[in-house]
Amino acid sequence: MATHQHTSFLENHKHRVRLLISCQDQPGIVAAVSHFLHENQANIIQSDQYSTDPSGGIFFMRIEFELLEMIEPNKLEEKFKGVAQRFQMDWRFSYANHIKRMGIFVSQQDHCLLELLWHWRSGDIVADIPLVISNHPKLRDDVEALDIPFHYIPIDKTNKQAAEETQLALLKEHNVDFIVLARYMQILSPEFVVHYPNKIINIHHSFLPAFMGARPYERAYERGVKIIGATSHYVTNSLDEGPIIKQGVKEVSHKNNTNELKRIGRITERDVLADAVSLHLEDRVIVYQNKTIVF
Amino acid sequence: MATHQHTSFLENHKHRVRLLISCQDQPGIVAAVSHFLHENQANIIQSDQYSTDPSGGIFFMRIEFELLEMIEPNKLEEKFKGVAQRFQMDWRFSYANHIKRMGIFVSQQDHCLLELLWHWRSGDIVADIPLVISNHPKLRDDVEALDIPFHYIPIDKTNKQAAEETQLALLKEHNVDFIVLARYMQILSPEFVVHYPNKIINIHHSFLPAFMGARPYERAYERGVKIIGATSHYVTNSLDEGPIIKQGVKEVSHKNNTNELKRIGRITERDVLADAVSLHLEDRVIVYQNKTIVF
Amino acid sequence: MATHQHTSFLENHKHRVRLLISCQDQPGIVAAVSHFLHENQANIIQSDQYSTDPSGGIFFMRIEFELLEMIEPNKLEEKFKGVAQRFQMDWRFSYANHIKRMGIFVSQQDHCLLELLWHWRSGDIVADIPLVISNHPKLRDDVEALDIPFHYIPIDKTNKQAAEETQLALLKEHNVDFIVLARYMQILSPEFVVHYPNKIINIHHSFLPAFMGARPYERAYERGVKIIGATSHYVTNSLDEGPIIKQGVKEVSHKNNTNELKRIGRITERDVLADAVSLHLEDRVIVYQNKTIVF
Amino acid sequence: MATHQHTSFLENHKHRVRLLISCQDQPGIVAAVSHFLHENQANIIQSDQYSTDPSGGIFFMRIEFELLEMIEPNKLEEKFKGVAQRFQMDWRFSYANHIKRMGIFVSQQDHCLLELLWHWRSGDIVADIPLVISNHPKLRDDVEALDIPFHYIPIDKTNKQAAEETQLALLKEHNVDFIVLARYMQILSPEFVVHYPNKIINIHHSFLPAFMGARPYERAYERGVKIIGATSHYVTNSLDEGPIIKQGVKEVSHKNNTNELKRIGRITERDVLADAVSLHLEDRVIVYQNKTIVF
Repeated sequence: MATHQHTSFLENHKHRVRLLISCQDQPGIVAAVSHFLHENQANIIQSDQYSTDPSGGIFFMRIEFELLEMIEPNKLEEKFKGVAQRFQMDWRFSYANHIKRMGIFVSQQDHCLLELLWHWRSGDIVADIPLVISNHPKLRDDVEALDIPFHYIPIDKTNKQAAEETQLALLKEHNVDFIVLARYMQILSPEFVVHYPNKIINIHHSFLPAFMGARPYERAYERGVKIIGATSHYVTNSLDEGPIIKQGVKEVSHKNNTNELKRIGRITERDVLADAVSLHLEDRVIVYQNKTIVF
Repeated sequence: MATHQHTSFLENHKHRVRLLISCQDQPGIVAAVSHFLHENQANIIQSDQYSTDPSGGIFFMRIEFELLEMIEPNKLEEKFKGVAQRFQMDWRFSYANHIKRMGIFVSQQDHCLLELLWHWRSGDIVADIPLVISNHPKLRDDVEALDIPFHYIPIDKTNKQAAEETQLALLKEHNVDFIVLARYMQILSPEFVVHYPNKIINIHHSFLPAFMGARPYERAYERGVKIIGATSHYVTNSLDEGPIIKQGVKEVSHKNNTNELKRIGRITERDVLADAVSLHLEDRVIVYQNKTIVF
Repeated sequence: MATHQHTSFLENHKHRVRLLISCQDQPGIVAAVSHFLHENQANIIQSDQYSTDPSGGIFFMRIEFELLEMIEPNKLEEKFKGVAQRFQMDWRFSYANHIKRMGIFVSQQDHCLLELLWHWRSGDIVADIPLVISNHPKLRDDVEALDIPFHYIPIDKTNKQAAEETQLALLKEHNVDFIVLARYMQILSPEFVVHYPNKIINIHHSFLPAFMGARPYERAYERGVKIIGATSHYVTNSLDEGPIIKQGVKEVSHKNNTNELKRIGRITERDVLADAVSLHLEDRVIVYQNKTIVF
Repeated sequence: MATHQHTSFLENHKHRVRLLISCQDQPGIVAAVSHFLHENQANIIQSDQYSTDPSGGIFFMRIEFELLEMIEPNKLEEKFKGVAQRFQMDWRFSYANHIKRMGIFVSQQDHCLLELLWHWRSGDIVADIPLVISNHPKLRDDVEALDIPFHYIPIDKTNKQAAEETQLALLKEHNVDFIVLARYMQILSPEFVVHYPNKIINIHHSFLPAFMGARPYERAYERGVKIIGATSHYVTNSLDEGPIIKQGVKEVSHKNNTNELKRIGRITERDVLADAVSLHLEDRVIVYQNKTIVF
């Protein structure tokens, strides 16, 4: 079974809800939202806000709160509509007791996959993993050892569309909420991406926008940089240009050849990706105009 | 004149106020505070909160807001009393247009002093510096070049009490709000410290609690550590045990002798101290039980 | 089988040798050593040296070189004796084609163990792992999945000496070269340690010398530090006071409770330990008077 | 006078020499060089080497040594010619008691200039500063306060060539060895650059190759990066594409607007530039094919 027993998390978070808001900045938002929560017997655990310009920009908010007791589905949403309409909010409640379902795509490199699986089994990453999809059979054992289904879907020039349809069908069948490309070495088509807007997390092996595109470590070596990095971002149809969630770097020197840059880079890649996935799982990332607000 | 012309800061912050709160965590605090601010036509710019334990710990909050127009002195305080009493808050408003008055204590080393002066003249550190006090005459020119009065008060075993009284008189005369020990190589007596509780910022040249006390770089060299650091903390009567505001580190190796550790350390010391001073100036630090909440 | 196929490493390093030297600094050492190597048709790949004091301190050197063809065992040693005696050197040759045999000790936490195993299977850590020893059965599956023998040797107050004797017998039987304590939660007795001087690598979960001893994260939380760390060091009979090989740190804040410090710390611990093990495997660490020279 | 009294440095380094070599890698280089040094009663202090490919690449070496007594000018060079010719080396000796003469170019921003001046007066940067050249009068007082001549040479579209000729005449007159562009906001013409090949150090305010060209912080903000950086490199005629000496980075977030990115960036810029200048002064940088070997 691909569902890790996140028992203690669920025990601690069964009444935990997050509210995410964006709207035009204007007076009274915080007062209205906190009044609403107080009325509904919610205790605020954490609250973050940001405004692009306090005198009339876009306002973003994430509030995590504890309900005294769990409410019926959609009840909170219904009650909140009034407040939301008053300020013309984009908004959603996210319930921590709905464990998000994460589909992992992988090719031949194991470091990002193993990192996610380790954080998952240690309980640091709270998600269900209904499936791992790969265009190579190589990592099957690592996945199946943890009782996670592994789907080998080979891709070549002739079958890409069909392969993506197979992938989409599997994702739908397993109610996958979001996808992590854990060094998946294929470019997803716009037809695929449209199904998961801001819900596909990629790890790029450079500190973007440096070395966009292919072979970043080779090009970093050529350029003689003294720092290499990795970037986790949401996938859009502009390759390597999606909203950046997290970046990390490591120092290197003339002594490091391309293979060593890759080796050093793997450590950064897995750390950055795991952080980005955690942020997404905890509903800490709001996308606005190709940038992220990370609370 | 020791008052830097923070004109553009004052222009942008003339209606800016910060509210700092600590109290027992309980439902309704945020609602009550944000309702109060809304009623008083305040637009919240930034808000941070933390609770040591959401089910009944200590609640801390810092709200930065913009008033529609500036209010009479003490008016806001008077109005807020009701809310404060209801939740038994420790609280204070801090007005950004009151530029804080910073007294700097220094001995012979210049790096922390020059860092503060550079940030001050560049406008990154918004404070008035009515005086610099030193137990050595060495840095007089650096200070006076910026039209800041420099007071040379020598200290030896016989005159420490008298010297501190002279210092206190000067600080009082110049309405100093807080003191920065920029590598001041004297221990302040409890009689001195009591006048500035959580208002004396020190920089210690190790990553406390490692190498408490004297000669930390010598001892770091002896121990063969691979990382050295610096710690900025509020001064209490327990030497090097006051609440930590900020820490920083740098990697070192066997190649670095004690002098080189000191040279490398100076960079960390000045950065960490400047950060700590900025945090204090922006009312971002709340002290609770010998620890800091840094918003 | 516990021997990973380090085929390509062996192919590339079959003529690779490292020479490690310490002696009183004096003129002519480098000339004599490089002359010796040139005479023996060795091509120097990398060379590092350090002197505690160029005018008469202790001189340390590590030279990695490639022999034109592999020499008979002990031949190089015999030839070098003349040079060594002339400068009264402590010295040894280390042959890269002798894959070092690493014994891992572990308890219940998996992160350091899994990190070593991942680096091992990816070929970044070139070692044989003839066995893993644990005082808990918990991690057996992770170890055996990679065909590495797992020995469960429970320890309590009554059987410590016997348990250590069992451990020593196993280590001897499997010709273990060095031991890694991958969060092994037992203190080794002096009777054990004496068998592996500067050959037992521990990971301590603080930036030593801060928080020596037990419960470092709890104490870090109590003290309110803003940085936590990990330290890898050789085990001596002075607990947590052995020569430091590598240290790493991460920033934390008031928001992180003890459990979160532990979670954040695990990332640092595994990185620092893996780096220390790599340095040891590549003969880059020379111990001198409770400190390390790391080339 | 623009010559800082580097008395203690000179005392400690009066017999200190550095030898820099690049040539085709081949057996016997180290033996020949160290034999030569031993013959000439030189005690090696530090030695670093690197080969792009030990089986036939380019070999680089930097040896720092202490002569028993100072030799006549050119004597060492003459003696070394035989060794150099045998291996067809590019080579030079650099005498530490020749204090390098550094010309600083600056515009209106003070942070990089002040950093260099602070390191200079503290003795961390051992150089003479015969002049500072600026296209703005703004920083005159900071420079002249340290008795360093300040030359204000305004530049506009019409007089660029004449201005550069004036600059070159001044540099020549003062025997300037190398130039530091401490946030000098003018592009030097190829006619200027040709006079100082690999002797003009620039600081670019991004982690190159990201955000080459103008307005990097504005573009970093637009892109929503989570890390900003600075790059110090030698100036060539390909703008922002010269050999990188040093890079540094700092984490940022959505909260930082462009002005804050600039403020944060200034800290990185000055640190990176000061490091690069130190490396250059200590002859630690060898340029090869648009990349640097940094020993």
